[in-house]
Amino acid sequence: MEEKVVGATGQSLGDEIVARINALAAISEAPDNITRIFLTPEHRAAADMIIGWMHGAGMQAHMDAIGNVCGRYEGDRPGLPCLMLGSHYDTVRDAGRWDGPLGIITAISCVGDLHRRGLRLPFAIEIAGFADEEGVRYASTLLGSRAVAGTFVESALNNRDKSGVSMREAMVAFGLDPEHIGAAARAPNELLAYLELHIEQGPVLEAEKLPVGVVTAISGATRLAVELHGTAGHAGTVPMAMRRDALAGAAECIVAIEEFCRSDRGGLVGTVGYINAMPGATNVIPGLVSFTMDIRSSRDSYRKLAITDMVREIESIAKQRKLDLQINITHENRTVPCAPWLQKQIADAVVAEGYRAFELPSGAGHDGMAMIDIADVAMLFVRCRGGVSHNPAEHVETADADVGARVLLRVIENFKPKS
Amino acid sequence: MEEKVVGATGQSLGDEIVARINALAAISEAPDNITRIFLTPEHRAAADMIIGWMHGAGMQAHMDAIGNVCGRYEGDRPGLPCLMLGSHYDTVRDAGRWDGPLGIITAISCVGDLHRRGLRLPFAIEIAGFADEEGVRYASTLLGSRAVAGTFVESALNNRDKSGVSMREAMVAFGLDPEHIGAAARAPNELLAYLELHIEQGPVLEAEKLPVGVVTAISGATRLAVELHGTAGHAGTVPMAMRRDALAGAAECIVAIEEFCRSDRGGLVGTVGYINAMPGATNVIPGLVSFTMDIRSSRDSYRKLAITDMVREIESIAKQRKLDLQINITHENRTVPCAPWLQKQIADAVVAEGYRAFELPSGAGHDGMAMIDIADVAMLFVRCRGGVSHNPAEHVETADADVGARVLLRVIENFKPKS
Repeated sequence: MEEKVVGATGQSLGDEIVARINALAAISEAPDNITRIFLTPEHRAAADMIIGWMHGAGMQAHMDAIGNVCGRYEGDRPGLPCLMLGSHYDTVRDAGRWDGPLGIITAISCVGDLHRRGLRLPFAIEIAGFADEEGVRYASTLLGSRAVAGTFVESALNNRDKSGVSMREAMVAFGLDPEHIGAAARAPNELLAYLELHIEQGPVLEAEKLPVGVVTAISGATRLAVELHGTAGHAGTVPMAMRRDALAGAAECIVAIEEFCRSDRGGLVGTVGYINAMPGATNVIPGLVSFTMDIRSSRDSYRKLAITDMVREIESIAKQRKLDLQINITHENRTVPCAPWLQKQIADAVVAEGYRAFELPSGAGHDGMAMIDIADVAMLFVRCRGGVSHNPAEHVETADADVGARVLLRVIENFKPKS
Repeated sequence: MEEKVVGATGQSLGDEIVARINALAAISEAPDNITRIFLTPEHRAAADMIIGWMHGAGMQAHMDAIGNVCGRYEGDRPGLPCLMLGSHYDTVRDAGRWDGPLGIITAISCVGDLHRRGLRLPFAIEIAGFADEEGVRYASTLLGSRAVAGTFVESALNNRDKSGVSMREAMVAFGLDPEHIGAAARAPNELLAYLELHIEQGPVLEAEKLPVGVVTAISGATRLAVELHGTAGHAGTVPMAMRRDALAGAAECIVAIEEFCRSDRGGLVGTVGYINAMPGATNVIPGLVSFTMDIRSSRDSYRKLAITDMVREIESIAKQRKLDLQINITHENRTVPCAPWLQKQIADAVVAEGYRAFELPSGAGHDGMAMIDIADVAMLFVRCRGGVSHNPAEHVETADADVGARVLLRVIENFKPKS
């Protein structure tokens, strides 16, 4: 094993990263939790802090036309295409501190290490700190990375937040020009690849006892809305055999969906997260039940076949119970595969650091879903305690943050563009 | 078959009953639906209308200390104990027109028929129009019949409606003296029996193609509140095998409850009418689910054993899924059996009218649940279209109302007190 990589103050990279994670976590609209929303004073304060760290790592840095922070560390000559690293620095409400910032801060620490060693590579390194990935304020995710990928949808400027402020108005108030979001877009030939380090947000690496994992794909997801219509009735007066109980029917569907996904060997996950039974009184047989399905898989065709099978099963349950069924797809995200040539370089770095190169899909969405439009993408996951995320209890061990940084640094130093 | 019994104006009793049902239905706090609530102007107007009909049927009539309407038709000499008939004339909000009034109006038409014929029986007949059975205003049911049975709970006077008006205040404003509710109570030796005709509120008689049915008991009911605690998690990042999904667990319980009651041969009914999954987002595995159970049977010991078995099954499901379980009984009503000697007299009358004497339990609650404390009780059900009740679509065919009246009249004329 090699000697420990140390940061600017003689700390390990892990120590530096955790100190910065905590510094950024203090920037919140509420004193008792972490909430950092797009185009707010906290957005500005966080951007200023990140730009300061970028400068300290020998990078040029600025805020782009949508509020992303962009840092650049030139290669061995100016103007070379870049390996782009990054993640987002907005949060959900009452968030954890790692989801997003870990990827930006780790990348800065890695570049800082190169800078301290005076090392220039045959390509530039850029770090994107995306201003809005979670989509809390305008119910539209990936705003920052879509602007960089040139796929920002102009009509989103008319979306309004809960206070009635449009995105266009908020941008102007923030000091940005909504007519020039296009200036944030990058051309495909400027990027060699997009590589993101992120907290896993799930329990798999913990179960595998591994600090990091190589992401194979950002799983595609299909969401469906299901309605079962039966007959409401008195809980005391309708014999069991004469009922058209929409909730009993829904329960059978939910058990079937779980069983289907549990017995699947292809990594499918399926969730019923929302249910509503009407009229919803203790002594009334439910006449109408709505529930949602969220089905994910890292293979789109596989997911679609599975959904066809599950829908057929639900139709059969509804038919047998004489319930009327409405089922609609409300949302569909295609799978974003991580480029095998990038996965290979990450896996080699993981092995060189002394760990098994464990592969896993990302069930959650990430900025790579937008960046795929202008670059090959890849991701490195860092272990998450108990699989808890989007929650104040979200946690990464300092030692794991350090392993993540060392792997990322190794990937950068050994990076070979796609031949 | 005998000749048709006709009312005051030469109509059949069925025609008279339906005309009066419609007249009473016009008394409502809202012009476009039927809503008649305890201690309101509509209560007063309905009582006046019913007292008028009682007078027309040759009865003495008055409003008692809690607002019930009480009519008395003396027997062949004054002061004899009575056969008490009755039902309630309050409604739920947006009610049907039959639930309650049918029993009062039919009884009045029967007495009117005796009166026109100058017939006096060796017992008095009383008709109770109970002022509050549904309990809409003060969340406490059977207020009228409990006052008559002497089991009115004084503390209910302090209950407040949604506007903050206490029952005590409402009684005073209505012109009643809350300190003298006790005056409404009747002594057991004043009553030979309590007999109620009521719309079935279920689909059983319709399925049996019968206009009337003999009630065996008012089923006891137990309500339970169930909570399953699992672990909330991201719908994309937690593999199926690592989940503690509270909703999938609840679904398995609901299917098991339905299956248990469906396969029961003892007339058990079980309903899950309310469910809530938290946090309730499409992309989050539910960490907490609450649901209710409503279990009814006409045999208390049987219901209790069944609940023990069902709870054991739920415990087993929770244990296997590593979910934490809380399950509590929130409500329990004992079964009120209909007296066999009264059932026999009703069944004989049904057969004499040319119909099969079909027996069924009442799954819904009725005033007999209070009256049992001072008298043997029995009920006669009249067919309900589609099993629909507590709903404007609630409907009884005129021909069925007529059969109900003829059966009730026959029961009255042939009534033999318990020997």
